[in-house]
Amino acid sequence: MLSWIDSIYADTTGAFVSNPLPKLGEEVTVFVRAFSSAPVTGVYLRQMVDGAESWKEMKKDFIRGGLQYYAAKILVNEKRCAYHFAFACKDRIIFYNQQGSSLSLPDDSHDFVLLADYPKPDWVDGAVFYQIFPERFASGREELTPKPGQYHYMGHETIVRENWTDIPLDGRTAAGMEFYGGDLYGLMEKIPYLQDLGVTAIYLNPIFSSYSTHKYDCIDYFHVDEHFGGDEALAKLSSSLHEAGMKLILDISINHTGIAHRWVQEGRPYYFKKADGSLEGWCGVETLPVLDYRNEELRDLIYRGDDAVLRKWLRPPYRIDGWRFDVADVFARHGDVQLADEIWPEICAAIREEKRDAIIIGEHWADASRYLQGDMWNTPMNYYGFGRIIRQFVGLPDLFLDRVKGLRDVHYEMQAEDVVRRTKDHYATLPGAIQDCQMNLFDSHDISRLHNNPAISEKEWKMAVTSQLLWVGIPCIYYGDEAAIDGHTESDAGCRYPMPWGHFSERGERHLSLIKKMTELRRSVPAFAKGGRMVLYARGRILAIARFYEEEAYLGILSMEEEETTISLPLCLIGKTAPAGDLDLFGAPVHWKEGEEGVEFRLAPRDSLLFACR
Amino acid sequence: MLSWIDSIYADTTGAFVSNPLPKLGEEVTVFVRAFSSAPVTGVYLRQMVDGAESWKEMKKDFIRGGLQYYAAKILVNEKRCAYHFAFACKDRIIFYNQQGSSLSLPDDSHDFVLLADYPKPDWVDGAVFYQIFPERFASGREELTPKPGQYHYMGHETIVRENWTDIPLDGRTAAGMEFYGGDLYGLMEKIPYLQDLGVTAIYLNPIFSSYSTHKYDCIDYFHVDEHFGGDEALAKLSSSLHEAGMKLILDISINHTGIAHRWVQEGRPYYFKKADGSLEGWCGVETLPVLDYRNEELRDLIYRGDDAVLRKWLRPPYRIDGWRFDVADVFARHGDVQLADEIWPEICAAIREEKRDAIIIGEHWADASRYLQGDMWNTPMNYYGFGRIIRQFVGLPDLFLDRVKGLRDVHYEMQAEDVVRRTKDHYATLPGAIQDCQMNLFDSHDISRLHNNPAISEKEWKMAVTSQLLWVGIPCIYYGDEAAIDGHTESDAGCRYPMPWGHFSERGERHLSLIKKMTELRRSVPAFAKGGRMVLYARGRILAIARFYEEEAYLGILSMEEEETTISLPLCLIGKTAPAGDLDLFGAPVHWKEGEEGVEFRLAPRDSLLFACR
Repeated sequence: MLSWIDSIYADTTGAFVSNPLPKLGEEVTVFVRAFSSAPVTGVYLRQMVDGAESWKEMKKDFIRGGLQYYAAKILVNEKRCAYHFAFACKDRIIFYNQQGSSLSLPDDSHDFVLLADYPKPDWVDGAVFYQIFPERFASGREELTPKPGQYHYMGHETIVRENWTDIPLDGRTAAGMEFYGGDLYGLMEKIPYLQDLGVTAIYLNPIFSSYSTHKYDCIDYFHVDEHFGGDEALAKLSSSLHEAGMKLILDISINHTGIAHRWVQEGRPYYFKKADGSLEGWCGVETLPVLDYRNEELRDLIYRGDDAVLRKWLRPPYRIDGWRFDVADVFARHGDVQLADEIWPEICAAIREEKRDAIIIGEHWADASRYLQGDMWNTPMNYYGFGRIIRQFVGLPDLFLDRVKGLRDVHYEMQAEDVVRRTKDHYATLPGAIQDCQMNLFDSHDISRLHNNPAISEKEWKMAVTSQLLWVGIPCIYYGDEAAIDGHTESDAGCRYPMPWGHFSERGERHLSLIKKMTELRRSVPAFAKGGRMVLYARGRILAIARFYEEEAYLGILSMEEEETTISLPLCLIGKTAPAGDLDLFGAPVHWKEGEEGVEFRLAPRDSLLFACR
Repeated sequence: MLSWIDSIYADTTGAFVSNPLPKLGEEVTVFVRAFSSAPVTGVYLRQMVDGAESWKEMKKDFIRGGLQYYAAKILVNEKRCAYHFAFACKDRIIFYNQQGSSLSLPDDSHDFVLLADYPKPDWVDGAVFYQIFPERFASGREELTPKPGQYHYMGHETIVRENWTDIPLDGRTAAGMEFYGGDLYGLMEKIPYLQDLGVTAIYLNPIFSSYSTHKYDCIDYFHVDEHFGGDEALAKLSSSLHEAGMKLILDISINHTGIAHRWVQEGRPYYFKKADGSLEGWCGVETLPVLDYRNEELRDLIYRGDDAVLRKWLRPPYRIDGWRFDVADVFARHGDVQLADEIWPEICAAIREEKRDAIIIGEHWADASRYLQGDMWNTPMNYYGFGRIIRQFVGLPDLFLDRVKGLRDVHYEMQAEDVVRRTKDHYATLPGAIQDCQMNLFDSHDISRLHNNPAISEKEWKMAVTSQLLWVGIPCIYYGDEAAIDGHTESDAGCRYPMPWGHFSERGERHLSLIKKMTELRRSVPAFAKGGRMVLYARGRILAIARFYEEEAYLGILSMEEEETTISLPLCLIGKTAPAGDLDLFGAPVHWKEGEEGVEFRLAPRDSLLFACR
């Protein structure tokens, strides 16, 4: 039975806050809504002011689609302005915060949060990211490619694949020494392709000097690898991208260098040492010595000095628009040396000093909420709040638990309730402006591509892509997913195959068309670009999630059921009465009719639908 | 239906951690338990190590009472060492953290937490606090009492009640200028009484120089008020208490002074000013100007300098054992000046530098978890996690919501589930060592005494006292509660009546006997002194909570039902089979018999029972 309590809703988008990015000291109006028929005697807003509770009665403002909007003005009195709501009835009070409604007084950890003076990059709303592993994307100048045997490194020598189409479908590739010849000039040539795809920002895996293909073992942070075209190529790429209206994000590992870095050769005191005097390696890998940020000179070199690494690339002629930090979860943490809470705010302040609207992405696969409160990152690689959840929902094992013997073999079919709980619990700990920055990916250079997994058909894959519009945040496409690129699932190499330019498979063409539609919707529809989100249904393996902004509302339905199923959805919760048509936004038929408890939908097995409501 | 999942349990007491107060770098063994019959294929411990997940399989250790204990060694690698558990079965993984069990991956906010090198006062386990409002407790030297009309202050002049028995039962007393003559010498004479009562520490409302009875409007932090006996009396009191094995905690308001403070007269730049140059008052009260801790000299005077206020009283000859900070929630917070996160750690470090095992209590009525993570307070006045909840459960309106017009009039009967949710949510955010320090009160100088409320009979009052043994933390008794002291419920004055020495009422004698039994149990029974806690039942208005330590287990049952009720409790969850006898620890009959789903208990209306289990 539908209760009026289910109709309570607020968020911190522009539809529920007069200014979601207020200045300190600014007065804003905040809204909350519920059925206009709700038996409510008063609606109240609770804010913390200088550490003390402050309550305010909200006034009835307007009604839209049967939903009464209540409004109150609040002063954004602190950097972090937190509030929740209370609906008074005759015999109960319903509290409402980002986690939802409750009859019991909630603690403060899931309040709605406005950040004052928060430098949210204004370009993230509607943005679509595209991650590129540069060595495998596109070759522009063949002469830049390393020569076979050119380097001997870590027990391997340089191997060069002569032919772009020579993709080893099942083969294993040598760890990081097998070159296909991708470079930044090749990437530049593909800008029209990326524009056509609907991408608004690209995120490049590391490009600074290194002997390997992945370049996480950097030997010089101050120069772009010559095989990628050097500094000059980056400057040109940046100009071309900006001219095309696109942003550029670079990846860097400031947690460790490669063992071949001259700082190691010179014996600089920048590294953690073991008792025997040898250098500590990241995850015990001796070739990746870990930097020790107790060293002040190192801090100067990396972020603090005027010509520091992180500052250099943000400035002309490179003008990058953000940083993605490798293994940011473990950065500046080493036994009794725990500097993360001190150094991250310093790093992020330095970046924002150079470019106020830069985006800061930290690699973190687990709960990163402590870094996502305003003074540190804008987003992690959002495996935790999106990728891990979606991959598991559509049928794969969890990326983390799969690493643990004994947990790996447990076969659990993730339920829709689990998806909602995990998503809601996590997002509810984040300020609204930070939620908008979440970088939602389901594939990357570190995990098997979803579509290469035997358990994943095009139906499940469509579900994952659709989900990128149903979660708050920025869809991130991993290069080649749109081409249904080949690969294997047993090692990192399997998700780093070169782009099959000129010979996309038939499935690839279907992927391409789906992705183009997804990016178009993300860019052009405010509900997907910056809208609110409400779960309308979560039972068994079926999820229905609405996205909306002001008068517009869209509904996504994902069914992982193996049988045809019929469900009823209360569209009245989003102020609507029916789907706007009989086809979804991707052209699939929507089978629906009016039912007694809402609109009835007939869902095919593994169905995913996305449509506007009226 | 009872599930094996309900039997999962761990905590961070000595029964589940080999050393709950480890040093940094120490290896400890942690335990978790569940039915030995549980269909578990493996139990795993998840710890964060340098920011990254680390999993460890746990080994079966011993079985006790049908419960299998699993053990794993972990290195306490950081100041904050967090972990949770995973139980693998064939088709699911059960995660278990301080909030309980879950099929979905939990975030990190409710992990079990060990604090390395945490200076937990070793005297809090088994402690019983007793709060005294000094002016109203006991008169030792009549000549110290102010003379009628001696002071004219805030529109009132000194009034003196000549007779201790002259208690105005219904009358209102003048705000803070009506003296009965309590002083520290009187208090000293009552030490044998307090020992007999079972008190182990007293917490005194402010005693520093001030014209008022409550002394929150201090005029000199460096001296004890002469009407209380001056500095010398405090030194003597401290010696006497320590000789009697008791601790002494003082209350101070470093948020504001009284307007009569010489710092105001001297125009010292220690205060927040309004635009017109006048001083900001606490809550707008002009006579209580708010201190501005941007001033470095003020920091030196209050806590930083070698002879600072907070240090002075911790040293001989005063040697107090802790500080209670008035309005600590709003301290150092004023518009764009938000210094709480900076100054509290400094203050707390200064205190612990003087006396490592001092207790630090901050006045906070709402969610104070941010202050309770190790580097700041040991405890708030625990209204939020205990007092507000218990008062509401036994029939009063919530202390906070009652202040808000529109919320005040909602009549809601708090359900047992609400109690559990609020308690569990809150405690689950605290490190274990901090949970032990929670100061659990239901009455204080700021709220109406529970027993003076018409809605509260002796039955509900017994329930509140019993609850002080059922919650983790330190029971705190407000002076006079044990005497069923008179008072009214409409103003602060109503809960500050003088002690009725020599003429306790009959109800008072019953209160006294109950409190003595409660304090005896708290002091002598490890389960109450430092034990774990598990909710066995929470439905309707009935709660059953177990406390246990190693082989011992006790059960408390609280029924707010108005009818006789029968419930079944699965004592097997705590490894027991039946009550140890037919009388509870307070002498009430326990009506029980073996039932099909556990032990059946017949509960009288408003029943509260507390008994050992075998």
